[in-house]
Amino acid sequence: MKLALIGFGTVGQGFVEILRDKSTDLKTRYGFTPQLVAVATRSRGTLLLPDGLDPARLLTAIEAGHLHHYPDAPGLVRDLDVPALIRASGADVLLEAGPTNLQTAQPALDYCYAALDQGMHVVLANKGPVAVAYTDLQARARAAGKRVLFEGTVMAGTPSLRLAQQALAGCTIQAARGILNGTTNYILTQIEGGMSYAEALRQAQALGYAEADPTADVDGWDAAGKALILAAALFDRTFTLADLDVQGIASITGADVAAAQAAGERWKLIAHVTPAGGSVRPQRVPNTHPLAAVGGATNAVTFTTDLLGDVTLVGPGAGRRQTGFALLADVLDLL
Amino acid sequence: MKLALIGFGTVGQGFVEILRDKSTDLKTRYGFTPQLVAVATRSRGTLLLPDGLDPARLLTAIEAGHLHHYPDAPGLVRDLDVPALIRASGADVLLEAGPTNLQTAQPALDYCYAALDQGMHVVLANKGPVAVAYTDLQARARAAGKRVLFEGTVMAGTPSLRLAQQALAGCTIQAARGILNGTTNYILTQIEGGMSYAEALRQAQALGYAEADPTADVDGWDAAGKALILAAALFDRTFTLADLDVQGIASITGADVAAAQAAGERWKLIAHVTPAGGSVRPQRVPNTHPLAAVGGATNAVTFTTDLLGDVTLVGPGAGRRQTGFALLADVLDLL
Repeated sequence: MKLALIGFGTVGQGFVEILRDKSTDLKTRYGFTPQLVAVATRSRGTLLLPDGLDPARLLTAIEAGHLHHYPDAPGLVRDLDVPALIRASGADVLLEAGPTNLQTAQPALDYCYAALDQGMHVVLANKGPVAVAYTDLQARARAAGKRVLFEGTVMAGTPSLRLAQQALAGCTIQAARGILNGTTNYILTQIEGGMSYAEALRQAQALGYAEADPTADVDGWDAAGKALILAAALFDRTFTLADLDVQGIASITGADVAAAQAAGERWKLIAHVTPAGGSVRPQRVPNTHPLAAVGGATNAVTFTTDLLGDVTLVGPGAGRRQTGFALLADVLDLL
Repeated sequence: MKLALIGFGTVGQGFVEILRDKSTDLKTRYGFTPQLVAVATRSRGTLLLPDGLDPARLLTAIEAGHLHHYPDAPGLVRDLDVPALIRASGADVLLEAGPTNLQTAQPALDYCYAALDQGMHVVLANKGPVAVAYTDLQARARAAGKRVLFEGTVMAGTPSLRLAQQALAGCTIQAARGILNGTTNYILTQIEGGMSYAEALRQAQALGYAEADPTADVDGWDAAGKALILAAALFDRTFTLADLDVQGIASITGADVAAAQAAGERWKLIAHVTPAGGSVRPQRVPNTHPLAAVGGATNAVTFTTDLLGDVTLVGPGAGRRQTGFALLADVLDLL
């Protein structure tokens, strides 16, 4: 199976590390011998090698700062632009792990369309195209007889979509409630430990959980993008950000947190979707609910189903290997 | 797809209720139109109808106390013994939902072998055959080119095995720790609420969670049987009950529970398996761990993996529809 990887940041590197470290295991257990034929970055070059790029050399090159550090090889083509790279790659699967844009989904969305037009499957860690254009993506994939998979867009590699769509097949899922943003959950956990909101945010930034501009996290937009994806995947409903009631955590005070604790509850930023709509809002969750126990940067989702009642999945919601694994899981599914 | 159901107690009836209530949905969403051609009970008769038995009429008959209340129909054969029923059924799948025997696994194990010999897949809600004879069952299934599935043996319909084997494919699972017995978890939760052990056990019995003889639950043997199944499914290791370190909860006192609570911990009966072995023991779990939040009769399992770290699944561990769904999920997987 030939793979083309667009985006070689944390997630893309995590995926390539897995290819480097687990190739024997993947071959033995799944008969999976991938060839990574193309890699693209925004500003650090692109590479095409129809015989397959070497994962270890790719990682060494990017650690040195630019893909031009990748050694020459017969057939190696450097610095094609991304559309040309996709056309020339001959890949079976496009892996899109570029930066997220929840307004236009570009340029990733055009890359996905180009790949489908070339007869490639598409695997996304990038939330934008699924949150913005799910219906169109699925229609184009159906027309091409290909699939679009996107496990990594919701809870990194924690298989929330695969649980809902495959392991719970036969149940009807009526609603999903999740802690889908690790940064805000980390901040709320630190406030419970006695920090102020400002201190907790600074610490989240120091640990790399929160961006310098934390708006997307603390105002709820990252979680809202994931809520759109859950609504699409679970209910085949395409809402927009404007359809959701979105509130962040900036207004939660130490006094709010203490009042909840005194009542046996914890504040959580909860993304909630049903076939009728969705919201992202801080909510008090009773300590007896599995979501209440989810502390720090961990994520979780509770699916409410007709036959099983509530089923909750708890796991990492970010991380290099953890999101890299999501790409692998989707590729193994295609296999 | 033709199905033969052995065992028409709570689980079997839950499954047939789902067939009765969701036939349109199953046909629309999955193209699944099952025919239940045979049903067997231990002491309330058996039925064979090659054209397919009617789920609603089966449920009415068993509610009236015996399958002889099922109305006559052309081709209906009554009261064959189970081996003859399996041979005559022409079914594609044997569903084994009879009573569990963790020592010999009989008579269910022989029924499974008979079904595989007839070229049928086997789906189990009955723990015995998997806990006692996993290796042999898999070998016979491989020889027959058929599959043995058993989602319902660990956490009812909560898809613990499907999560581990399918959704986490690509990860290596290094260990599993679970709360796999709802009765003991209910009792421990009640002791935390102030009851004595004896009171909590009586209440569990009154609610139908615990048997009149509660030994299998409170001494840890039910959880141990599930630990054997997890070790087999996750690690392809066949331990026996004698290989496991098994302790029950009868020695846990109110003072033990209070001491744990004061330290921010909760007592849980934890089944733990790795490729090297396993145990079932009461353990103190810190409140920051997802397993600590699992109260009442709910079950949960934490898989420790190489790529994702810990992933925890929480859901029902018993119940009519909940375990009936496990049979459906396995059958849909075969489909």
